[in-house]
Amino acid sequence: MTLVKKPVTGMKDILPAEMQLRDYCIGIIKKTYAEFGFTSIETPAVESLQNLNSKQGGENEKLIFKIMKRGEKLDIDGAKEENDLADSGLRYDLTVPLVRFYAAHTGELPSPFKALQMGNVWRADRPQKGRYRQFMQCDIDILGEPSNLAEIELILATTTTLGRLGFKGFKIRINDRRILKAMAAYSGFPEDKYDEVFITLDKMDKIGIDGVSQELEKEGFDRASIDRYLELFKASEGKSGLEGLKTIADMVGEFLEEEVKTGLSEIISCVEGTKAADFEMEFDPTLVRGMSYYTGTIFEVAMPQYGGSCGGGGRYDRMVGKFLGQETPACGFSIGFERIIMIMMEEGFKIPGESEKTAFLIEKGMEADRLSEIIKQAQKVRESGRSVLVVRMNKNKKFQKQQLAEQGYSDFREFYVKPLD
Amino acid sequence: MTLVKKPVTGMKDILPAEMQLRDYCIGIIKKTYAEFGFTSIETPAVESLQNLNSKQGGENEKLIFKIMKRGEKLDIDGAKEENDLADSGLRYDLTVPLVRFYAAHTGELPSPFKALQMGNVWRADRPQKGRYRQFMQCDIDILGEPSNLAEIELILATTTTLGRLGFKGFKIRINDRRILKAMAAYSGFPEDKYDEVFITLDKMDKIGIDGVSQELEKEGFDRASIDRYLELFKASEGKSGLEGLKTIADMVGEFLEEEVKTGLSEIISCVEGTKAADFEMEFDPTLVRGMSYYTGTIFEVAMPQYGGSCGGGGRYDRMVGKFLGQETPACGFSIGFERIIMIMMEEGFKIPGESEKTAFLIEKGMEADRLSEIIKQAQKVRESGRSVLVVRMNKNKKFQKQQLAEQGYSDFREFYVKPLD
Repeated sequence: MTLVKKPVTGMKDILPAEMQLRDYCIGIIKKTYAEFGFTSIETPAVESLQNLNSKQGGENEKLIFKIMKRGEKLDIDGAKEENDLADSGLRYDLTVPLVRFYAAHTGELPSPFKALQMGNVWRADRPQKGRYRQFMQCDIDILGEPSNLAEIELILATTTTLGRLGFKGFKIRINDRRILKAMAAYSGFPEDKYDEVFITLDKMDKIGIDGVSQELEKEGFDRASIDRYLELFKASEGKSGLEGLKTIADMVGEFLEEEVKTGLSEIISCVEGTKAADFEMEFDPTLVRGMSYYTGTIFEVAMPQYGGSCGGGGRYDRMVGKFLGQETPACGFSIGFERIIMIMMEEGFKIPGESEKTAFLIEKGMEADRLSEIIKQAQKVRESGRSVLVVRMNKNKKFQKQQLAEQGYSDFREFYVKPLD
Repeated sequence: MTLVKKPVTGMKDILPAEMQLRDYCIGIIKKTYAEFGFTSIETPAVESLQNLNSKQGGENEKLIFKIMKRGEKLDIDGAKEENDLADSGLRYDLTVPLVRFYAAHTGELPSPFKALQMGNVWRADRPQKGRYRQFMQCDIDILGEPSNLAEIELILATTTTLGRLGFKGFKIRINDRRILKAMAAYSGFPEDKYDEVFITLDKMDKIGIDGVSQELEKEGFDRASIDRYLELFKASEGKSGLEGLKTIADMVGEFLEEEVKTGLSEIISCVEGTKAADFEMEFDPTLVRGMSYYTGTIFEVAMPQYGGSCGGGGRYDRMVGKFLGQETPACGFSIGFERIIMIMMEEGFKIPGESEKTAFLIEKGMEADRLSEIIKQAQKVRESGRSVLVVRMNKNKKFQKQQLAEQGYSDFREFYVKPLD
């Protein structure tokens, strides 16, 4: 019988060293979010295709691993298209399942409901370095809180978590979809083309202001509008969070509701005044974020030293209502868990406070009574919470000890059939 | 747009109260097994169908959720059977993936390799109360340890874990496939019918010794063999572990190798002499365990007060070799995680040492500066590791506080737009 040794295409096995780091991080994340009043929930890995294809998943809906129907439901001969053969699939994010969960259990949940989800998601993306088809997502969401207290708590909780994981000197870039729209309106772009404009604006990081200018022109937008638009970014560039926001708000004037500006200012100043980690809030009028379901604030964790974003989120006040039939304000923040693990591995992160580990090496042929005595000793050490590995001594004891040292064992005790004394 | 609110058939959402208990148990399990030198690993939820259908999975191979091929690989018109449409599926256990993992990474792993796996598995079983199509398994395995040190450590680690989760007065039933065979040979059953005999013996719990007798006769076995067989169980009944084992070993005589008896005696006495939880070892010659891959010792956690087994395992020395091409002794123990959670929920288990939780209720319309001050206070309390929920005060404050009390909040602080002073 031959076995396929490799994991299926695009997915990976996790070895002990990485797993230990992941468990450590999961511990910190769960503990910190709990301190902010978030409670963990879990939904099945499998969701109905009807939900997965509800148009909230954007491009991810093309990447679903579909699960074949079973038994009588499966009619291979009569099948004409994929959806004749499948009615469920692996979830590609934790947002669609959260909304379904909330709709199913509203009556049993507090309001506002603060949820933490840590779970795997699956996307049939083209495999590439560092990106896998199964990966863990880590989302916090507040459902039922219309005020910016939601944004403040989400940002504080996430940055505190990142701080405890050892990250510092990062930025939280923040913007608001309504500011994006106000800027586009002020510049005179046609309303039905806003999304196109935003897609180009989103490339500012990569192609710069001249690149954006050229691309907008190529797309056929009016030169005057483009110039008026780019003036906004030039005017706010290099200014601090609150200043930049004020500059743009003053320029776009009546196109922006006062409360949007006030709400965003409050978030920035309140987070800056109460933060428990080393980072800065940055108002960034070029921040777009892809998902079309966002309705208000949007934000992102920027760690330029590690080449980009390590998480993000925003407000999506209309999505839950679409499903539930009852308006429910919602706001969420997702940490890029896999990215963070990758950075920590690359930086050689050492898990703090790991206690010394002991290995008992026992010569082969040890008589039962003495083996029992030795294990009793091991059990005593374990009672103190310390790890004791009890193993047979290999022929090449030196190599065995080297191997164990690599796994973090520093204290070795050797037991021989004939005691040495 | 309509949304299916329920989880897919046979799977379940996990709400905050259960999730908190699960996280608590996962923490205890991971910590305790680490003290015994087990390291966590993880494999993808998806495995190739070739591996899943390798005949090691027994009946579970009929319950696979298959994942549809994608893109060019998917030929719906030309497909004649399921396997034309799918080449991977969701794993139904953690044993097949462990063996694949070991085969893929042998060179990077220590020997012996002590693995802990906690992960979901999927089986398209008929849905029934308390059994779901997605559930968590919790397996420890030792690969590369031929001696009974493996069994001793597996049993000590698992019972210590169960003890720390609050279980006591349980039993570890133990037997050996080689004793089962020796008893069958001694009784004169034909060798090619052993498995049939064992399947009937396995029902002893339910149908009693007379039931077993009748069923064996109905299957056409020789009356003299049946009587000789049942004598063994009568002779050992009610005897303590070591005594019962001795009785049977003496009766079957040369049909059993001396080292099997000695090995099992050593396990029983060593575990009894070093155990760190309130349980007993019980030699049980009627213990069979279903999976055909077991080659030596087999064992099970018996909690009669909760209606049966809460885990089990055994030695499977030939399975890894079949895949790897190189003999590798192996022994594993699996805790019935979902069962344990169910029992703890039913018993109203209280998580020990949970700290008091505080809720800040803030009246609507609070000015930004004061909100910032209040959040600063919350952040101070959080620094001490204590949970603080910051929420807007609802109109019905009394009901809100009741709801919060149900979630474990006992300390409330209220903040009004006009301070009460």
